[in-house]
Amino acid sequence: MPSLRALLSRRLRALRAMAMGSGSMGSMGSMGSGSMGSKREPVLSPSSMNAAIRRVQYAVRGPIVTRALELEQELRQGVPKPFKEVIKANIGDAHAMGQKPITFLRQVSALCLFPPLLSDPSFPEDAKARARRLLAACAGQSVGSYSASPGLDVVRADVAQFLQRRDGIPADPNHIFLSSGASEAIVTMLKLLVWGSGRSRTGVLVPLPQYPLYSAALAELEAERLSYSLAEDRAWALDLPELRRALKEGRGHCCPRVLCVINPGNPTGQVQSRECIEEVIKFAYEERLFLMADEVYQDNIYGEGCEFHAFRKVLAQMGPPYSDTVELASFHSLSKGFMGECGFRGGFMEVRNLHPEVLQELSKLVSVRLCPPVPGQILMGALLNPPEPGEPSHQQYQEEKAAVLRALAERARLTEQLLNKIPGIRCNPVQGAMYAFPSIQLPPRACAAAQAAGQPPDLFFCLRLLEGTGICLVPGSGFGQREGTFHFRMTILPPTEKLQLLLEKLGNFYTNFVKEYS
Amino acid sequence: MPSLRALLSRRLRALRAMAMGSGSMGSMGSMGSGSMGSKREPVLSPSSMNAAIRRVQYAVRGPIVTRALELEQELRQGVPKPFKEVIKANIGDAHAMGQKPITFLRQVSALCLFPPLLSDPSFPEDAKARARRLLAACAGQSVGSYSASPGLDVVRADVAQFLQRRDGIPADPNHIFLSSGASEAIVTMLKLLVWGSGRSRTGVLVPLPQYPLYSAALAELEAERLSYSLAEDRAWALDLPELRRALKEGRGHCCPRVLCVINPGNPTGQVQSRECIEEVIKFAYEERLFLMADEVYQDNIYGEGCEFHAFRKVLAQMGPPYSDTVELASFHSLSKGFMGECGFRGGFMEVRNLHPEVLQELSKLVSVRLCPPVPGQILMGALLNPPEPGEPSHQQYQEEKAAVLRALAERARLTEQLLNKIPGIRCNPVQGAMYAFPSIQLPPRACAAAQAAGQPPDLFFCLRLLEGTGICLVPGSGFGQREGTFHFRMTILPPTEKLQLLLEKLGNFYTNFVKEYS
Repeated sequence: MPSLRALLSRRLRALRAMAMGSGSMGSMGSMGSGSMGSKREPVLSPSSMNAAIRRVQYAVRGPIVTRALELEQELRQGVPKPFKEVIKANIGDAHAMGQKPITFLRQVSALCLFPPLLSDPSFPEDAKARARRLLAACAGQSVGSYSASPGLDVVRADVAQFLQRRDGIPADPNHIFLSSGASEAIVTMLKLLVWGSGRSRTGVLVPLPQYPLYSAALAELEAERLSYSLAEDRAWALDLPELRRALKEGRGHCCPRVLCVINPGNPTGQVQSRECIEEVIKFAYEERLFLMADEVYQDNIYGEGCEFHAFRKVLAQMGPPYSDTVELASFHSLSKGFMGECGFRGGFMEVRNLHPEVLQELSKLVSVRLCPPVPGQILMGALLNPPEPGEPSHQQYQEEKAAVLRALAERARLTEQLLNKIPGIRCNPVQGAMYAFPSIQLPPRACAAAQAAGQPPDLFFCLRLLEGTGICLVPGSGFGQREGTFHFRMTILPPTEKLQLLLEKLGNFYTNFVKEYS
Repeated sequence: MPSLRALLSRRLRALRAMAMGSGSMGSMGSMGSGSMGSKREPVLSPSSMNAAIRRVQYAVRGPIVTRALELEQELRQGVPKPFKEVIKANIGDAHAMGQKPITFLRQVSALCLFPPLLSDPSFPEDAKARARRLLAACAGQSVGSYSASPGLDVVRADVAQFLQRRDGIPADPNHIFLSSGASEAIVTMLKLLVWGSGRSRTGVLVPLPQYPLYSAALAELEAERLSYSLAEDRAWALDLPELRRALKEGRGHCCPRVLCVINPGNPTGQVQSRECIEEVIKFAYEERLFLMADEVYQDNIYGEGCEFHAFRKVLAQMGPPYSDTVELASFHSLSKGFMGECGFRGGFMEVRNLHPEVLQELSKLVSVRLCPPVPGQILMGALLNPPEPGEPSHQQYQEEKAAVLRALAERARLTEQLLNKIPGIRCNPVQGAMYAFPSIQLPPRACAAAQAAGQPPDLFFCLRLLEGTGICLVPGSGFGQREGTFHFRMTILPPTEKLQLLLEKLGNFYTNFVKEYS
């Protein structure tokens, strides 16, 4: 009975807060608290803060990253370590791993930020044309002005054209919302969807393993997370019977209303087949679920025979009753793909079949944060209007883009191959995205040592690995995994040579670790 | 009994949702809903969405702005109107009103976004030095990589030094969090502070009139807003007895734990005296309230004898028990001041006397959104390291900055003077910030007409003004005002000539409006 427990714990917190004097006890505080000395209990303490926030966890930037940052500082201070640098394979941050920005995108950005460059002959004309168009769309012709809350009109129109080009399905610019990375749009959509308590509390179906933005946002919004396990033995495929099981179980104690799908998968790297997407859409239709499709890795496809199919495309092609009924929000980002521009915090969402009044509510809600960062919108505008054949930047743009995608595909294969050479580690094909998520066997004595240290066994291993080699991975427990199995997520982003070295060190460390605890 | 009412309305919503089939009614949906036809009730409808979001209002971008955008479109399409352009005096967006960016800030930004410019001799050396330092602090030397979640270390250190320089009070970089505009940081802090329901629900003291970010965020978080009226007859001064009244009243039905102060005031433009700030701090100490100081207009001070005093400075100078007890978060932004770079979404918050574990929770919470937009962080870094005397950009920087601040001071005075010449309108001195918030008398027949149209009288007036003149203002009801009084907020940002014209048109329209309804 989770609702009763939650109610009781709230009650207790309230009583505690009142006992601390911040409750409705009149003006007792003003009567003489000055004499209590300055070290009284603060207003905002671990026990008096919003408990929902305390329950939020975010492994990608969790304790392991805190320790990695400390180690970097210690290295800078000359503290001797068994390694010379910390390799952060914990986060999909391509530029941090040495990937160079796409020249054209940055040229357009620089031109918009400092328009006197428009008369600099060293900038190509196609970049200048894009910059002039984008600047003309900014109020006062400055990226320093607020845009409309859902984003610059021209960029929303660009997104609509991009979606039409990609899928052969028209898009309405009024159903497109630019955002500060995909994360912001995902949370915004969840805010509309999540409410209630007890049996009417909104349940949200989320894959397991999942990207921890979902668990964090659901904890904060006090929604019920309903996990459906991906099939590790079928390359992390989405399994319909398992989805049904999770839904049925959820209906026992909450009100499931949302189904989140990550395709290509994060952290699991699987690419969904078209058939699977159709099944998911039918399921959402039959079970009356709002669909959220996280498609930020759509440009990162490496698996043979794998192809990206957008949920919006499949939905539209399925025709009625699906195409005009199933409510869908799909998400994209500047942070991944071949551009990897995480720092700009650019992204967008398209909504389909949204109730017109809900669309208005969504517009109102995004207006409170005024507008998404304009430099990110500008970069999005440049990305969606790449140099055409015959334009001066076309060849370089194509070459830079192809080189990045080729390198990523190579590293995806290399990572899978080398991981599978380590006895005790088993890695599915990295069909897409930017991560490997191998399973790892940990000896019972290592698990016992982890328990003694108060850590999940895979966190214990990852922390030991970090201290011993400088390699920073994220333990599988941060994403969720079937009980009794252990994993870690590592990015495929380090340059090929470094990646090889990293995997070699990892293999050696793991082998010794297993010996030590056998 | 608001809690019972809230409970009942939730219950009703839950029942409604269940009746619609999205409740815990097992798999009824899958049994035959396909035959229900495609126009069934959506999952997410006005009645099944999160009701807290429905209660959110945000006047600065509300219906009046929607109509202004429509009018702009109609003008572009050649629809005849009694005006040639829409003048958006509704929002503090300096660049949109023609203010030019500060050259040095944009040079540093462009250099960071497109580093090949570092070898361009037309860029000054001081801008290049700032850019090199900032780039070196970015992972992979790219603004496209994620920064640490609380922001780039060097920029946090810059903020700490800026605060020390400004106030003579040291700051700890670890207590500084960069953000996506001040808005994001304010909402983040409120998320930690707000919880509970019924009598233990967090109450937040907010000025009346207030900036609607506060009411919007509190509605979304389901906190109790406790309004304390500013004293219009004393130039919108903060009134301690009124603050006490609001607190006492709040203690009757919720748990007041937070006090928000906006200084300089928005929309009211008052600048708080040092004595008043001391009184507020004592009040917060005695009543055990967490202090939030919104100081984004600190560079915009025009009133004679007015001076900005940071809450953190006054708090530190008051000594114990205040200085080491009162919990304070204060906020600043790139969007206002003399730079007016709203589109970059840059800002920061400093926290004082925060419980160490709460500081950790705050760090965790901001990590979920990964990082603030890096271009905004870069601009912040440039702003806090302006050209020094003897550096090549020094003179131009000082001139540009002084020109903007001079123009704003002139427009503040002009706005006040011209508004006060209109019979029926009364405007307090615009001591600071970017707005005038005059009171306006509306004839009883106009109020009756507004009621018939289902609009607050001041919205009715502002909509009529917009349709008749193209001038876009925000009605006072969007900020809150004492019952029976009416106001509007207008920015002082239009260029002086345009501002004069605007005020003249406004005066004429208002005079005719009064005649029409007398």
